[in-house]
Amino acid sequence: MWHLLRIALLNLLIVSPIAVSPIAAARAPLVFMSDFGLRDGAVAAMKGVAYGISQELVISDITHEEPASIFEAAYRLYQAEAFWPQGTVFVVVVDPGVGTDRLSIVLKTRNGHYFVGPDNGLFSLVAEQDGIEELRQIDEKVNRRPGSENSHTFHGRDVFAYTGARLASGTIEFSQVGPQLPPQRLIRIPYRQPAINGNTASGLIPVLDVQYGNVWSNIPQNFLDRLGVKVGDSMHVKIYQGATLVDELRAPYAKTFGNVPVGKPLIYINSLMNVAIALNQGSYAGTHKIGSGVDWFIEVSKD
Amino acid sequence: MWHLLRIALLNLLIVSPIAVSPIAAARAPLVFMSDFGLRDGAVAAMKGVAYGISQELVISDITHEEPASIFEAAYRLYQAEAFWPQGTVFVVVVDPGVGTDRLSIVLKTRNGHYFVGPDNGLFSLVAEQDGIEELRQIDEKVNRRPGSENSHTFHGRDVFAYTGARLASGTIEFSQVGPQLPPQRLIRIPYRQPAINGNTASGLIPVLDVQYGNVWSNIPQNFLDRLGVKVGDSMHVKIYQGATLVDELRAPYAKTFGNVPVGKPLIYINSLMNVAIALNQGSYAGTHKIGSGVDWFIEVSKD
Amino acid sequence: MWHLLRIALLNLLIVSPIAVSPIAAARAPLVFMSDFGLRDGAVAAMKGVAYGISQELVISDITHEEPASIFEAAYRLYQAEAFWPQGTVFVVVVDPGVGTDRLSIVLKTRNGHYFVGPDNGLFSLVAEQDGIEELRQIDEKVNRRPGSENSHTFHGRDVFAYTGARLASGTIEFSQVGPQLPPQRLIRIPYRQPAINGNTASGLIPVLDVQYGNVWSNIPQNFLDRLGVKVGDSMHVKIYQGATLVDELRAPYAKTFGNVPVGKPLIYINSLMNVAIALNQGSYAGTHKIGSGVDWFIEVSKD
Repeated sequence: MWHLLRIALLNLLIVSPIAVSPIAAARAPLVFMSDFGLRDGAVAAMKGVAYGISQELVISDITHEEPASIFEAAYRLYQAEAFWPQGTVFVVVVDPGVGTDRLSIVLKTRNGHYFVGPDNGLFSLVAEQDGIEELRQIDEKVNRRPGSENSHTFHGRDVFAYTGARLASGTIEFSQVGPQLPPQRLIRIPYRQPAINGNTASGLIPVLDVQYGNVWSNIPQNFLDRLGVKVGDSMHVKIYQGATLVDELRAPYAKTFGNVPVGKPLIYINSLMNVAIALNQGSYAGTHKIGSGVDWFIEVSKD
Repeated sequence: MWHLLRIALLNLLIVSPIAVSPIAAARAPLVFMSDFGLRDGAVAAMKGVAYGISQELVISDITHEEPASIFEAAYRLYQAEAFWPQGTVFVVVVDPGVGTDRLSIVLKTRNGHYFVGPDNGLFSLVAEQDGIEELRQIDEKVNRRPGSENSHTFHGRDVFAYTGARLASGTIEFSQVGPQLPPQRLIRIPYRQPAINGNTASGLIPVLDVQYGNVWSNIPQNFLDRLGVKVGDSMHVKIYQGATLVDELRAPYAKTFGNVPVGKPLIYINSLMNVAIALNQGSYAGTHKIGSGVDWFIEVSKD
Repeated sequence: MWHLLRIALLNLLIVSPIAVSPIAAARAPLVFMSDFGLRDGAVAAMKGVAYGISQELVISDITHEEPASIFEAAYRLYQAEAFWPQGTVFVVVVDPGVGTDRLSIVLKTRNGHYFVGPDNGLFSLVAEQDGIEELRQIDEKVNRRPGSENSHTFHGRDVFAYTGARLASGTIEFSQVGPQLPPQRLIRIPYRQPAINGNTASGLIPVLDVQYGNVWSNIPQNFLDRLGVKVGDSMHVKIYQGATLVDELRAPYAKTFGNVPVGKPLIYINSLMNVAIALNQGSYAGTHKIGSGVDWFIEVSKD
């Protein structure tokens, strides 16, 4: 019996450091997003650096396709991040200013997400959605891939993936990222907030639902509730680029695409619970040449 | 000694719930397929929901690029799924009818695979390939992401990823998905089965091998055996769209591409062990304007 | 107390085989690269085969998009692999000669990486970068997916993924791959090495940094050091396709893109520490119609 017990205790000594370490912390997902594309080895180089820190990491992706703007990248991030568990570390590299004096940062939001990347506006929308808990500048003397000191054009690999992986694996605590910055230091991209004027709700077209050509707005569903709009009501929509009226339409406010005939327009609530426009099984944006970004606006009212 | 033992037992109490849980069940791969594209955060939102259920999940993908039709999506799924281990859960979201009265289902096949998605024909071919063991409707009162009750256009995230992750992680048993449906309830897309008439084998062009432009059929290799065709024989092939003859060719039946000169056509057996047509290092489909789907047919005979 | 102890020991017996097995070996990352594209189920079929070997595998990707040539594929691999940890197994399938008498091999390099694929030049650059430790031919009698013996056109799935997964999971040792081959047997793609002649450094344009249109060379940074070039110096660059001068430019040698005005050219050191040319926030290659490959050359000197 004592012999068995000794083996048991020996095993525990082997098992323990793994078993009693904060597994949850050590398995926080590490999620990459960049504009690198997937045609070459750039994204894989970042992931290799991360797995070099810990092969226990759970690594995933948002997108690596080029956005039209940093604002669009910020929106893609905002669209996905809320659905990830607490502790998730996002490494986000859309970084035209790499190697200049723009800061390298990690933002911790109030829902326990970490965002690692350049301070260039990328984190505007998640900061607004989740609230800033703490902002730190990456100390590149410590949090930089050893041997990469002379590399100036790939912070995604040398600084952000490296730091993100150390954070997600529990190799460093958030406080070891580098010095705190005042939250108001975070660079934000200004954009028009949704509003109600009289019987009209207005807002921005932050992005298109690119795969289908649906037009998304930042007008929340409850603005339609406040205007007394009910499913089945006919709506009147105007779309502007800057001050220019680009498109005007009338369509029913429907629950989902299949509630109108194929090829017909509808106003609906998208998956972020905002007002959107679609053609059932068609591309509204393609057909009507609608774009997106901080200078595309939309007005919605009951017909 | 007793002090050490107490520590040992304490550690065990920490370790045990993880160590003795059914690890194998908890690690069944969760495989996503959709038509969402990878340009925005939609696929990542689904994966975030899944990791929110369990960070132990092994998550992978088939494809997220838009198919030409639900039949093509069904074929892509059929092409990949047979190679995955027993217990794998596939979440498949090509869902133009989202939010209408089409059912949300989980199909369990006889080889122990689970297919989660809309009942719109997507599972036609895997049901035929693997056999139906049991079909259940997802009870969205239970198997729906909490807080998503008012979202009607993203069941991929709110219902399918959520349910698939719960199944793959062992959080729920298959019986907890929802009520059983009769297997014959599964919606199937009708298509022409391969056949032999006299000296001619005929069948469908279900998909193209898109990356290379090879033309695939659903005529199995053993049909050629039954026609007495041997490697090296010259073959005669006719391709129809509906009743219209689109293309006619003569080419050798070869083992692999490199058995004919660069740029020359060949008849070969593809990776699903069906008859196919290629140009060695060229695109047969591109050059000869061949398409695919339930209205594209092929006839093959010895020359 | 003894009752608890018995439970403890029982648990240990369950935990031990996992906890004391060589976790590191069993978790070596398995990294896929191919030219299959991501539109169909081909890549997923390979991953399914791999997870069928072990669901403990950590699986990742370099790229699956079609390269312009095997040399470009070799370069993408070279670009990414150095950043992966020791033990990583790369399954690389760009294989126009599949099913012919080209060999199926596994290359072990001196940094402890394994490269599984066809012997067609794909491993030229990693062999040069890392050094060959040992080269083995895959014995397809043993290392082939059971049941795939009659499949001749998808070694990626049937041989390479299967063998790579067995190696990465520790199911087989490297010596069990198959017979040793002499290292000089490895097929290499010849290309021009970088050189200094007088005041001019010359080399190849192996690939473009495709996502941004930057022009990469294989001239190492220290060649510029040897020519006495300092950041801020004006440089003179000539680009040739074969013997034809395609482009000539003068631009500063800068640390990073943002050091020159938007739209202006710069010479910089890329992420592989080689000389490169870019337009700040533009595409140099697109604007000046520059290509890449073994017949594209570049000459750089101080202006």
